[in-house]
Amino acid sequence: MNPEDLLELMSRRRTLRNFTDKEVASESIDRIVQASTLSPSGADKLPFITIKILDPDARAKIRKASEKADREFHENCDPKLKKWFDAKGIDHRKEFLTKAPLLLVIAGDTTKPYWRESTWLSIAYMLMAIESEDLGTVTYTPSDTSFLNQLLDMPQNFKAEVILPVGHPAETLPDKKARVTGKVFDEKYAGE
Amino acid sequence: MNPEDLLELMSRRRTLRNFTDKEVASESIDRIVQASTLSPSGADKLPFITIKILDPDARAKIRKASEKADREFHENCDPKLKKWFDAKGIDHRKEFLTKAPLLLVIAGDTTKPYWRESTWLSIAYMLMAIESEDLGTVTYTPSDTSFLNQLLDMPQNFKAEVILPVGHPAETLPDKKARVTGKVFDEKYAGE
Repeated sequence: MNPEDLLELMSRRRTLRNFTDKEVASESIDRIVQASTLSPSGADKLPFITIKILDPDARAKIRKASEKADREFHENCDPKLKKWFDAKGIDHRKEFLTKAPLLLVIAGDTTKPYWRESTWLSIAYMLMAIESEDLGTVTYTPSDTSFLNQLLDMPQNFKAEVILPVGHPAETLPDKKARVTGKVFDEKYAGE
Repeated sequence: MNPEDLLELMSRRRTLRNFTDKEVASESIDRIVQASTLSPSGADKLPFITIKILDPDARAKIRKASEKADREFHENCDPKLKKWFDAKGIDHRKEFLTKAPLLLVIAGDTTKPYWRESTWLSIAYMLMAIESEDLGTVTYTPSDTSFLNQLLDMPQNFKAEVILPVGHPAETLPDKKARVTGKVFDEKYAGE
């Protein structure tokens, strides 16, 4: 693959919160979950699982529990973060959890070495695979995730790190621009 | 980009520990660090920095300090992990840190929200960019990283999460295979 094509894919991927209700093709879902298992992981153990949720009732339950957890979080969060949320129009309401036709819950196995690092490498692989299908998602983590263990029959050693709602974009966002200034340094750190 | 091309790139990427000493083209380095800033991050803050290290003396110092930290780690690590290390021929020696002509140190800003998650998404982006350049790397984290704050003038709020040695492959490894069985579930967890 041409490196420029990969950079273009990365630039095109934007966090998406508005979805149409068009369903996601099963071949796309298959490729996205395959991608999740191709990332490197601690001792190559893939210390995470992915649960695909298409059932509307299950998605409604997840939305309800997420909003309950996030209501309190938004009321008490750090003022700087609150300001950013306000500017983006983000609050405790998570319509995307029922609007997107597919939810992917990715949970790490907290008993395995490097589980969190490995889980987030896998999530990045999925983000890119989702973009390559011309689908969109938002990297959403409810402020409390323990309800997912109960709803999805996950043993306590699993910690849900993210819910990715996946669907067709209902909006078009401008490409991302690389921002290396203040983020990338030669030989030593030199201040942001 | 064709989704199959992306999956092929992901399958081709293997953890590489053997490098030639051929230098890495500066255009490749530029694209890899650009990729690091295109990943999504908490409040879009990019709560991480990347330091490019080409200087041989600096790489030798990093190798020496890493081996010192890892010698103790390998003597005391979990028996299961030790068995995996032994099978792979991995010990405290990190020749790749001086053999590869480029080290990328990626450090998270621990004062920012979701810093660790965001940092690992960025690392995955770099891994893929490195592969797209037909280069290789290993996702290496010394068991103690505080020496990097000192060597690289990084303030204490930065935590080095990984050192990526980047270079041309001195070996060819078979493609990775997707492993969805026991890792991906429909609607609910159903045992690995």
